[in-house]
Amino acid sequence: MWLRNCWYVIAWDHEISSADSPDLFTRTVLDEPVLVYRTQAGEMVALEDRCCHRHAPLSVGRREGDAVRCGYHGLKFDAQGRCIEAPGLAVVPPKACVKRYPVAVKNRWVFVWMGEPEQADTALLPDNFSCDSPDWRNRPGYLHYDTPYLLICDNLLDFSHLSYVHEKSLGGSTRIAQARPEIESVPGPSAAWPQIGIQVSRHVNDVPAPPFYQRFRRFDTHLDRWFVYQFLLPGTLLMHSGGRPTGAAPDAPGPSVRLHSCQTLTPESANTTHYFFQQSHPVGEGDESVTESIYNSLIGAFNEDRDMITAQHRNIQRQPDRPMLPLAMDAALIQFRRLLEVRWRAEQTVLSPAPLSQPAISA
Amino acid sequence: MWLRNCWYVIAWDHEISSADSPDLFTRTVLDEPVLVYRTQAGEMVALEDRCCHRHAPLSVGRREGDAVRCGYHGLKFDAQGRCIEAPGLAVVPPKACVKRYPVAVKNRWVFVWMGEPEQADTALLPDNFSCDSPDWRNRPGYLHYDTPYLLICDNLLDFSHLSYVHEKSLGGSTRIAQARPEIESVPGPSAAWPQIGIQVSRHVNDVPAPPFYQRFRRFDTHLDRWFVYQFLLPGTLLMHSGGRPTGAAPDAPGPSVRLHSCQTLTPESANTTHYFFQQSHPVGEGDESVTESIYNSLIGAFNEDRDMITAQHRNIQRQPDRPMLPLAMDAALIQFRRLLEVRWRAEQTVLSPAPLSQPAISA
Amino acid sequence: MWLRNCWYVIAWDHEISSADSPDLFTRTVLDEPVLVYRTQAGEMVALEDRCCHRHAPLSVGRREGDAVRCGYHGLKFDAQGRCIEAPGLAVVPPKACVKRYPVAVKNRWVFVWMGEPEQADTALLPDNFSCDSPDWRNRPGYLHYDTPYLLICDNLLDFSHLSYVHEKSLGGSTRIAQARPEIESVPGPSAAWPQIGIQVSRHVNDVPAPPFYQRFRRFDTHLDRWFVYQFLLPGTLLMHSGGRPTGAAPDAPGPSVRLHSCQTLTPESANTTHYFFQQSHPVGEGDESVTESIYNSLIGAFNEDRDMITAQHRNIQRQPDRPMLPLAMDAALIQFRRLLEVRWRAEQTVLSPAPLSQPAISA
Repeated sequence: MWLRNCWYVIAWDHEISSADSPDLFTRTVLDEPVLVYRTQAGEMVALEDRCCHRHAPLSVGRREGDAVRCGYHGLKFDAQGRCIEAPGLAVVPPKACVKRYPVAVKNRWVFVWMGEPEQADTALLPDNFSCDSPDWRNRPGYLHYDTPYLLICDNLLDFSHLSYVHEKSLGGSTRIAQARPEIESVPGPSAAWPQIGIQVSRHVNDVPAPPFYQRFRRFDTHLDRWFVYQFLLPGTLLMHSGGRPTGAAPDAPGPSVRLHSCQTLTPESANTTHYFFQQSHPVGEGDESVTESIYNSLIGAFNEDRDMITAQHRNIQRQPDRPMLPLAMDAALIQFRRLLEVRWRAEQTVLSPAPLSQPAISA
Repeated sequence: MWLRNCWYVIAWDHEISSADSPDLFTRTVLDEPVLVYRTQAGEMVALEDRCCHRHAPLSVGRREGDAVRCGYHGLKFDAQGRCIEAPGLAVVPPKACVKRYPVAVKNRWVFVWMGEPEQADTALLPDNFSCDSPDWRNRPGYLHYDTPYLLICDNLLDFSHLSYVHEKSLGGSTRIAQARPEIESVPGPSAAWPQIGIQVSRHVNDVPAPPFYQRFRRFDTHLDRWFVYQFLLPGTLLMHSGGRPTGAAPDAPGPSVRLHSCQTLTPESANTTHYFFQQSHPVGEGDESVTESIYNSLIGAFNEDRDMITAQHRNIQRQPDRPMLPLAMDAALIQFRRLLEVRWRAEQTVLSPAPLSQPAISA
Repeated sequence: MWLRNCWYVIAWDHEISSADSPDLFTRTVLDEPVLVYRTQAGEMVALEDRCCHRHAPLSVGRREGDAVRCGYHGLKFDAQGRCIEAPGLAVVPPKACVKRYPVAVKNRWVFVWMGEPEQADTALLPDNFSCDSPDWRNRPGYLHYDTPYLLICDNLLDFSHLSYVHEKSLGGSTRIAQARPEIESVPGPSAAWPQIGIQVSRHVNDVPAPPFYQRFRRFDTHLDRWFVYQFLLPGTLLMHSGGRPTGAAPDAPGPSVRLHSCQTLTPESANTTHYFFQQSHPVGEGDESVTESIYNSLIGAFNEDRDMITAQHRNIQRQPDRPMLPLAMDAALIQFRRLLEVRWRAEQTVLSPAPLSQPAISA
């Protein structure tokens, strides 16, 4: 189950070569192979990576200016996806074209719109400001998962796992799991999107600094920690988090940690997922070594997640229909899954001849 | 096709760490992941290796005394499988529990009962005495097969293959294949189990000593050899075998070989199998080097079997419904498959709403 | 979709050991494992590589004179596939036999007939003369594909791909793709086979010599090139090709290239294919180094094809039912696929109880 009418991150912008490079970038999103390149004018282009003729991937062909030529029988397509040359044919049939996807680039993330192009709305792009801000520093990351993307959404929607999966990295205290977060609805930008996600706020006071903080900042007191994030359709986490000495005012002097993280999940296929992420610190609060330390901790912790979710997925695959046991800590993930399902059903209604009764949007 | 109401060997006892070790042992039986550990009092515990909450394997969590804590969100289960702590919850819902399997340990084999716990009957445990006897020496073995367990049962129920698969190891003479074994029924311990297996007795006289014997005992005469074994549900072979100089009385002086072997097959999944085995010699008839020689010959021979059965399985998978050609040598395996099917049908009858007509137990 | 009533190449003759060798050759054709060996009198034998008893492959058994003994339980089969010995049985049941395939050897190719034996007709064997001729030199080749065989037929039926896939090897000019080939029907040897293939003739004048030629013969003029080939059921290409200085008469002195190539595709399974090939040059036109140069160029180019077709196949597997866009360059492959389908339907008619209406043979 995934939505089509939404923006998915397909790449970090540095993954897409400049127009003078012959390289063609391809990545699969929602089981569709997508070719991404930049025109000479700098515009980002996304075409289905499948020639309409015999279905060879265009990415094993070559660029010719702003066009792409298929490497099998030589059909040439412009940046609109129209075939503008077919060897040996005086006239190219108008049906000869490949699908073009709406593209947007925002703060170093390259997004593609996988559904109906006329629905594409840049107001829906998430505010991933810290990915590209003069005030924040980070190192961008990417991981590939061999699990469905919803299991990773579940993980990000319940931070009680920090106490166990990340005991020796991001967590450091069972108090994180014991805290009860506040969960709110995130309204969307228009009537078509009354809700676009969930906001989760978790405050955990008077706990030891996590091993992750200790690697770049020394604390000799307990901390008050916070995790305040939005988790937005289709699968983007935008989070402010940090810690300061217990009881200290937000602007008190002395060591503290403030971070902003942008993470997003893009289904590659039913059972595989792309994961793009970064966690930034303010420019004034640490040099390159702090950036590297945070990145390394994050990679380590996200591998802890991936190991756990992969093991969980193996168990689920043995008996896919076996019910799970909902507990209080699942509140946010249940709300998010419900929101996703409502929109998914609405998409099916549009596409299917016999419309289902459409459930109300959950609060 | 496999039975649920029976004991399956899940491990050699030395594979399960002691209570002071943090390691958690897991192995899949009948497609179910099973966690096995010892309590501090030494009791063996088997729980389903799947947290009831989000289905993560408990084996990637940790032991806490006699309890196990899930490494994903921290639920803690006691040795009965009851959840006794869920982080952030004042009261644990009674439905929060994982399946507990009856366990038995006998002569170093750890058995789990995969069916209805109230049917578990230790009178059904096989008499694997030589696995742990002061009078016998052996080295325990384990192999993993990528084939269904019934193909390996077939193999063990027709020793005519010794002449061909094991020509240069356990066999040594085509006379083994030519001999006609005696086949008898093995009655069970109770009215519920009128038959639990097949006894196969094969005597082969005046044949050269097999290469396998020659490696640890020198013979300059032909031998009379015997193989007398029970093959019991669900898939356990208990065998006395040996050889003495042709025509010699059982208690005549001079070199001879007497062995006792215990082998058992546990389905891991439809197409994969666990194989636990040992072949013992009397303590007084050879030192450690004989034990090693027998073990090494057995491993070599069982790899010969595995290669053959794996190749056979590949052929079967191409056309699973193509019939085989029953021949006289298949008598024991046909009787065993019939016995298994009768019990399997009876299990389905119990589980299914519309009971099948139950066939009579075959003689 | 593949035909059964036709000859498929299963091996180069040098792949089948002589009668004194214990080796047994096996290869899968149309999803059937086939054992091939030579009798002591030199006759080639092809039997199904599956013992009728328990379906073990005979190829893991051994030769005994002109017979083969199964390595599992010792059944022995003669070169007709009849079981002539079953250990322990006084009388072998007449049903104990394995399938025997008609075999033919012609010019180093070993063919098996996979359909009804009484239909096997050696008049249908292709004229692969250059594989074994005193007038031609070549080095035989084999490649394995992880794609359906029809995608490779498609490739060989449209040489416009030479301009793109083989730009730097066999091609060298976009003019090859621009040329419009002549396509003719190839009649069969009998009324039962009114058509057995397609003839494709492509002439491309006044083009640079391809990189492939330049490696063994130096040209300082443009060439007139030709490719004249038959593509015959089930998947055999027989081709005369070459190049001479533009405008020169066929017998003019000076450098030129003349080649004859025999290539054939045998489905191993629905998604895998065997590819046997050679490209010969006249004995008088180059020594061993030329033979090697041609072979190396061919291997390089066929790997270019395989990479492209494998990538194409991955795309097709994502959406197998998505239609392709037929273009003028597909004329030959469309005709060949139609011819194949007509014969395939006729085969189904014979085999199925309710015959389909049989389409007319396409011209």
